[in-house]
Amino acid sequence: MINIVILGGGNVAYHLTTHLLKNASVNLIQVYNRSLDKIQHLKNFTSITNNLSKLKEADIYIIAVSDDAVIEIASKINFKNKLVVHTSGAIGMNDLHTNCNKGVFYLLQSFTKNRIPDFSSIPVCLEAENEKDLKLLFQLASEISSTIYEINSEQRKHLHLAAVFVNNFVNVMYKIGHDICNTANVPFEILKPLILETASKIGEISPYEAQTGPARRNDTNTIEKHKTMLPINQREIYTLLTKSIHKTYAEKL
Amino acid sequence: MINIVILGGGNVAYHLTTHLLKNASVNLIQVYNRSLDKIQHLKNFTSITNNLSKLKEADIYIIAVSDDAVIEIASKINFKNKLVVHTSGAIGMNDLHTNCNKGVFYLLQSFTKNRIPDFSSIPVCLEAENEKDLKLLFQLASEISSTIYEINSEQRKHLHLAAVFVNNFVNVMYKIGHDICNTANVPFEILKPLILETASKIGEISPYEAQTGPARRNDTNTIEKHKTMLPINQREIYTLLTKSIHKTYAEKL
Repeated sequence: MINIVILGGGNVAYHLTTHLLKNASVNLIQVYNRSLDKIQHLKNFTSITNNLSKLKEADIYIIAVSDDAVIEIASKINFKNKLVVHTSGAIGMNDLHTNCNKGVFYLLQSFTKNRIPDFSSIPVCLEAENEKDLKLLFQLASEISSTIYEINSEQRKHLHLAAVFVNNFVNVMYKIGHDICNTANVPFEILKPLILETASKIGEISPYEAQTGPARRNDTNTIEKHKTMLPINQREIYTLLTKSIHKTYAEKL
Repeated sequence: MINIVILGGGNVAYHLTTHLLKNASVNLIQVYNRSLDKIQHLKNFTSITNNLSKLKEADIYIIAVSDDAVIEIASKINFKNKLVVHTSGAIGMNDLHTNCNKGVFYLLQSFTKNRIPDFSSIPVCLEAENEKDLKLLFQLASEISSTIYEINSEQRKHLHLAAVFVNNFVNVMYKIGHDICNTANVPFEILKPLILETASKIGEISPYEAQTGPARRNDTNTIEKHKTMLPINQREIYTLLTKSIHKTYAEKL
């Protein structure tokens, strides 16, 4: 059985902890967080601590804290021949400085406090310094998910950037859609089936093929009308994205 | 039983025709398209024509053609006391000039040729000149969908604009994510669960609450690194959307 220590109290740590506690093939022996408040609810299920010098000996230490804190915490874990991994998309494996072995256990999903994630469909991106550690991480990942990838630090940096577009920036589009609905006094609910269909479609056809709308058709009449309906910030976004669509399809003519 | 004529051969007309032909409570008596080729496959199931002067008498004429052609086609339908509706988000009801009664039957969904839509979840936005016609449209809509709204032309214009953001512009984000994956030689597939989760989340929490990422956290370190990784067009989009997120959350501080 793999012995695990999780370090962190945010959304990733919270959901990973909850999930691993339910798994009989994994032994979550300890959870660390700098404030005990956030992990107090775990004390009947595992050992908790806010003191890095009291970490127990484990096979894998999973650092699931904010990007700013990862490197500092990693440097304070001192167990020879044990494996320290972080869960960050943006930090390279070799940015960690520790006496332990190093690796990455990146869960490519957006975690929200009150939504229980379906771990089985979350892609787990693994990286390690050697085959033995990679195998160990693979063993852990396969207890969690059915989609596992070996991804190096350079690839992961790009994946993380792509995730900013398909998640954070997509959400900006939803926010603007929401604002427009509010202004016109129509319920945002009406747009939800379209939002889901737009996301689902990408499972079958490429974004290049899926593009529709006034910009794709170069329907300048509608585009000009739309611009007059928007406040300046949103108009700027509308104009830039319309230009981007034009450029994509003009290049292929 | 309601007698219907559909005018058009594009994606909306195609799927609506296929769907109504299966419905025993609706009588699709004719389909018009300016080219018969596109509707030839229907000739064993209903009457087809490419001649507007040969339109049969029906209760509702549904014009599902490109925005440019709607007004011209409507002006050529001449049946007193019959109802002509269009399916466009961008065109006002009173933009139609016809001797018939006027209305709108707007299906707020993105239709793709080879994907069979789940009509029951598609919001149908109705508008008519009088109660009797609205009731008739409602009767038709309820044969198709369980989500029906009365939406006036002004509201619909805004809905259509919001749809450009949550559908067309969201797809641009997917396209850029796809490009980044290609550059880094990682499969775009890895992002699909995140894409679906981002869309599903909006069913439960508002886009304002759902926003995460480096821009929301004001993680300038990551933002600057990301910018260096992008070609100029994508960097411009990254910068503008990051600025927009800053602005949204700074206003609320």
